[in-house]
Amino acid sequence: MSSQLGLMGLGTMGSALARNLASRGFHVSVWNRSPEKTEDFIRHFGESGFTGSPSLEEFVESLEKPRKIILMVPAGGPVEELLQDLLPLLELGDAVMDGGNEHFRDTERFQESYITKGVLLLGCGISGGEEGALKGPSLMPGGDPQAWESFRPFLEAIAAEDFFGKACVSYMGKGGAGHFVKMIHNGIEYAEMQMLAEIYDVLKNLFRLSNDEIAEVFNDWNESELNSYLLQASVDVLKQKEADLFLLDVISDEAGQKGTGVWTVEEALKLGVAAPSITEALFIRMLSNQTHVRRPLHAQFKEEAPVPNQTVGNFTELAEKALLLLRLAHFDQGFSLLREGNAYYEFGIDLSEAARIWQGGCIIRSKILAPLNSALKEPADSLFLYGFAETIFKEGLPALRQILSLTTGLGFATPVMSAGLQYIETLKRDRLPTTFIQALRDRFGSHGYQRIDREGVFHSQWK
Amino acid sequence: MSSQLGLMGLGTMGSALARNLASRGFHVSVWNRSPEKTEDFIRHFGESGFTGSPSLEEFVESLEKPRKIILMVPAGGPVEELLQDLLPLLELGDAVMDGGNEHFRDTERFQESYITKGVLLLGCGISGGEEGALKGPSLMPGGDPQAWESFRPFLEAIAAEDFFGKACVSYMGKGGAGHFVKMIHNGIEYAEMQMLAEIYDVLKNLFRLSNDEIAEVFNDWNESELNSYLLQASVDVLKQKEADLFLLDVISDEAGQKGTGVWTVEEALKLGVAAPSITEALFIRMLSNQTHVRRPLHAQFKEEAPVPNQTVGNFTELAEKALLLLRLAHFDQGFSLLREGNAYYEFGIDLSEAARIWQGGCIIRSKILAPLNSALKEPADSLFLYGFAETIFKEGLPALRQILSLTTGLGFATPVMSAGLQYIETLKRDRLPTTFIQALRDRFGSHGYQRIDREGVFHSQWK
Repeated sequence: MSSQLGLMGLGTMGSALARNLASRGFHVSVWNRSPEKTEDFIRHFGESGFTGSPSLEEFVESLEKPRKIILMVPAGGPVEELLQDLLPLLELGDAVMDGGNEHFRDTERFQESYITKGVLLLGCGISGGEEGALKGPSLMPGGDPQAWESFRPFLEAIAAEDFFGKACVSYMGKGGAGHFVKMIHNGIEYAEMQMLAEIYDVLKNLFRLSNDEIAEVFNDWNESELNSYLLQASVDVLKQKEADLFLLDVISDEAGQKGTGVWTVEEALKLGVAAPSITEALFIRMLSNQTHVRRPLHAQFKEEAPVPNQTVGNFTELAEKALLLLRLAHFDQGFSLLREGNAYYEFGIDLSEAARIWQGGCIIRSKILAPLNSALKEPADSLFLYGFAETIFKEGLPALRQILSLTTGLGFATPVMSAGLQYIETLKRDRLPTTFIQALRDRFGSHGYQRIDREGVFHSQWK
Repeated sequence: MSSQLGLMGLGTMGSALARNLASRGFHVSVWNRSPEKTEDFIRHFGESGFTGSPSLEEFVESLEKPRKIILMVPAGGPVEELLQDLLPLLELGDAVMDGGNEHFRDTERFQESYITKGVLLLGCGISGGEEGALKGPSLMPGGDPQAWESFRPFLEAIAAEDFFGKACVSYMGKGGAGHFVKMIHNGIEYAEMQMLAEIYDVLKNLFRLSNDEIAEVFNDWNESELNSYLLQASVDVLKQKEADLFLLDVISDEAGQKGTGVWTVEEALKLGVAAPSITEALFIRMLSNQTHVRRPLHAQFKEEAPVPNQTVGNFTELAEKALLLLRLAHFDQGFSLLREGNAYYEFGIDLSEAARIWQGGCIIRSKILAPLNSALKEPADSLFLYGFAETIFKEGLPALRQILSLTTGLGFATPVMSAGLQYIETLKRDRLPTTFIQALRDRFGSHGYQRIDREGVFHSQWK
């Protein structure tokens, strides 16, 4: 019996995705670079839904034509190598989907080399971690539309569900559109996680709440408009105990990263889109590794623990509104990147669809994606300009100012929350003091300036 | 009579530099792509110090051997083209200096193509604008050490003077070291200018000071430890009048940029160095052009003008200390980039020398470069760890917290000042809430975490 689909790479994500496919009734051929892993997998999960092939040739032979193959191997070099090994065995009309965390520019490069032989390559962002891959991820495919149609029934079957029960998968656009959308997803994820880390920090170290008490606050917020997967996951993280100690309290603060945060900021620079919250979250991960600076500085400038001049109840009430506005700022930066990326790369991404397929399965899924999905059906230059944003803005802004005025005065680090507030304050100004910069640039560099009272570019003899 | 030196490109900077060279007694051959400009230049500045050559061949022939040629043409394509045209006319031992605003990687690329013919290329960052080029710039040369020795007497003669009367020029290191140092200089410049724009904004729009009154405050600060070229230039900018109106008040707030800010942040990403103040300054220039978002948002969320709850005298006293600390943060980000760039690219830059040659002629020259120059003779992982920084830190931090707590609460945008404060608050923490991020990343992505109570990488079954 031929398999309907092949899957290569049986790591954490690959195995989970293969099992998800089989659970939906598909027969899947699996392959792994080291054949022992394939054997292990078949031994563990049975032969009914799977065919395990030790060689590349047998694997390809075991598939129905036109063949459909999903690659779940590490992005970059390993994908490129496997694509090269695979190409001679494939035929016109076969389709390959790269489900790794690929840079969208690599996706496009791979597509170009494949299309010369008539083999179609789909680049698909997958979010949701192991659990998502197994039970229903958010899938962001892009590339050849015909390849999308080939994979579509399988992807729709395994994807998570959106708020209306539809599959969290949609064709994002041509070229590297899928991996581009996934990259932006991860950028937003950086900002969201750092925001939660900061509010946890303030509740723990300023208001002296216990981990259990913070979990309770987060749980309450999760019942509100603030509802999000990361908030729910945070409750688990806060409650996790090991013997009599909270696991969180013994985890090292040196944070890792896998590169997508850097890619997102690189794109922000290239496209000229301000993404201060995402960038600040990335910088804080870098600073978290600067222990050789932080420890001596801390020792040298030790301070007494500050005492807040308001109740924690008042603070959390304000914070709930403030965090929702900050989340909107994070998504606004992400959607500005999608908008400008669309214009620059001509991906053809439907921003509303991006908001819809993020409603389930992925790491940044949250209640705010409901109004976002609807609003984005009409174009606007900023999420803040949509009708639904008005209440969030009007309630959130005074709250955000108040809590950050407090933490700033008391010397509490809230880098991403501050970056978000500054982003908003800057966007709501009709006239910025960048006039001063333009004047200075003309003063020392003769760069010229424009005026508000007449057309043209001007240069002055200053002084 | 042969010329000691050739200079190509008679734009603003090129003309000024040629005149500077002639004023020091050197005879200079000048050339420009359009010969009329050369003729104009000679007509204007006389034949005593200059030889004007219409053709490339005559220009090269007019030079003493080994030839020394300074290129002052626009960076990138125009430089590359001219270098290609020039190479066939040059001989072993000739030296060319690229004085444009070149990306250091292009400098290195050009050097490689030149060295194959034995022609030596120096990449030299030049700061100070037209005035600096004419009267004494800060010069940051890098590349072949022999090329440096060829140009050295000329560069030392025309450079500005440091605080001790020495020339503001020093061999920065191999390859693109010179243009790398200039790029970092410009990154710091971005942050410094935006900081001044923000404090101007607060004084004008929160404390309702007139432009003349703000100029007075800036003038006072310029007499203090805060002394800097940009502060002095700001006074000019504030005072400039056109008929009965202040010019600053009619300048457009849409800020331009020439790319070096983007380059600096790209390097920060590549080297893994947090540069939040520089990056925020860059993002604000981008947001300054988003008038189609800012104007409708401003109209929709109009607010009453806030009233400060403290006197302007008290505020400016605090701000003086706060701005000095922020400047240290800007320089810390810059010198961290230099330190890591040195390690990664093996430039061999002497950080203390960089601080010395920035003492005169350049845009970021300021009093703080005196202690920086001395301190950097010993290595340290952060400027904040030097002895001289202690007072700045201890006096500046409470002041900075207090003024930003005020502006934050009142809804005033201070993006770069806030980014600077957050950078400092983060660096002085011994334990950051990035523990929370590591826990979350393991919770949903099985990325693993480290612990503070034992060695190794761990993964938990959460919940």
